[in-house]
Amino acid sequence: MVEGAIATAVAALVNRDETLARKVVDEDAEIDRMEVDVEEDCAKILALYQPVAGDLRFVIAVLKINNDLERMGDLAKNIAKRVLYLARVDQVEIPVDFRSMAVQAQDMVKRSLDALVQADSSMAHQVRQDDDVLDGMRRTIHEKIRAAIRARPEQTETLMKLYSVAKHLERMGDMATNVAEDVIYMVEGDIVRHQGEDELPDDQEEETGRGEV
Amino acid sequence: MVEGAIATAVAALVNRDETLARKVVDEDAEIDRMEVDVEEDCAKILALYQPVAGDLRFVIAVLKINNDLERMGDLAKNIAKRVLYLARVDQVEIPVDFRSMAVQAQDMVKRSLDALVQADSSMAHQVRQDDDVLDGMRRTIHEKIRAAIRARPEQTETLMKLYSVAKHLERMGDMATNVAEDVIYMVEGDIVRHQGEDELPDDQEEETGRGEV
Repeated sequence: MVEGAIATAVAALVNRDETLARKVVDEDAEIDRMEVDVEEDCAKILALYQPVAGDLRFVIAVLKINNDLERMGDLAKNIAKRVLYLARVDQVEIPVDFRSMAVQAQDMVKRSLDALVQADSSMAHQVRQDDDVLDGMRRTIHEKIRAAIRARPEQTETLMKLYSVAKHLERMGDMATNVAEDVIYMVEGDIVRHQGEDELPDDQEEETGRGEV
Repeated sequence: MVEGAIATAVAALVNRDETLARKVVDEDAEIDRMEVDVEEDCAKILALYQPVAGDLRFVIAVLKINNDLERMGDLAKNIAKRVLYLARVDQVEIPVDFRSMAVQAQDMVKRSLDALVQADSSMAHQVRQDDDVLDGMRRTIHEKIRAAIRARPEQTETLMKLYSVAKHLERMGDMATNVAEDVIYMVEGDIVRHQGEDELPDDQEEETGRGEV
């Protein structure tokens, strides 16, 4: 459902399709309900079966991934809300193509979940690496949007909505990276998060996905 | 430590103090380490003591709050990085006062943690309500920054950094709200998240703090 929400939100954006956007907004409530259910299930499993070792790790990973999935759903909903806003204002030329960035974000989410289901840590390592590609795409898009704002300051408000769409897509990638790191921890028992993050230059944003970009 | 990081990051911003900003960036690694330790401790407690009922709820809440705290640390670090950027570029007039928003965000974080430690769900309910105030502050600041961009488009890049500082402060409030909701769940066994969020107008962003604004 979360993968679908992301795909639909991006399709809504690219095609300026209000109906699709509304669908994403409406269906988020179902994702929210599922998060609550999954957490309750985890609590029950912990209480009734008292798992240890690998099984316990799996449940802890699921508790955290569950949280991240719901947040990805919110990001998709936010993008959809941007589309509803854009549909109401004057047509503004979109100075960037969000499609490839969206495909990259979606793909990372999909593979992070595949890695979880298949307990495939090498796939998870790949997702971590791909996050750099997504960050680069976000930077390029942001530069273009800032240039558009400088050229057409009267469209600042609308262009800022596009700016935050790119940010949302990047944050989805960060959350897919979180999921991937939880999978690696689950499979390898190795806490990879917070490794290598000190190499970031000062002007590069640390993502709130557990300190990893 | 996270509360301190937030306070220091904001002081660095308001006073344009590069040394303070550097301190926040450097100390984030310690917060990251603590997150890993807390999660390991939770795993050990679950495996060795197999807690049930209220104790189990507490451990689940701590696992999630631990995650959110680390992300708040990242947000403080991001604000500090913005300060390091601002220190390098031409002096630009900051068109807004971040202080009251920062105080509000910090206060919410503090009270959400007090609510956890004291298992005080009424304090947690208050934190949830205060998030609306913080969101309003963010909206006002964002409007002012957009006006400044329209007036001085050549300063777009720098003004956008300030825009995201406000966004970061808002997200800290969202995370404090997450913590508060985990406390309420822990104390009352009631899942309050995802309640009342459908009242949001379309132009208002859904926060990725578990769907609650």
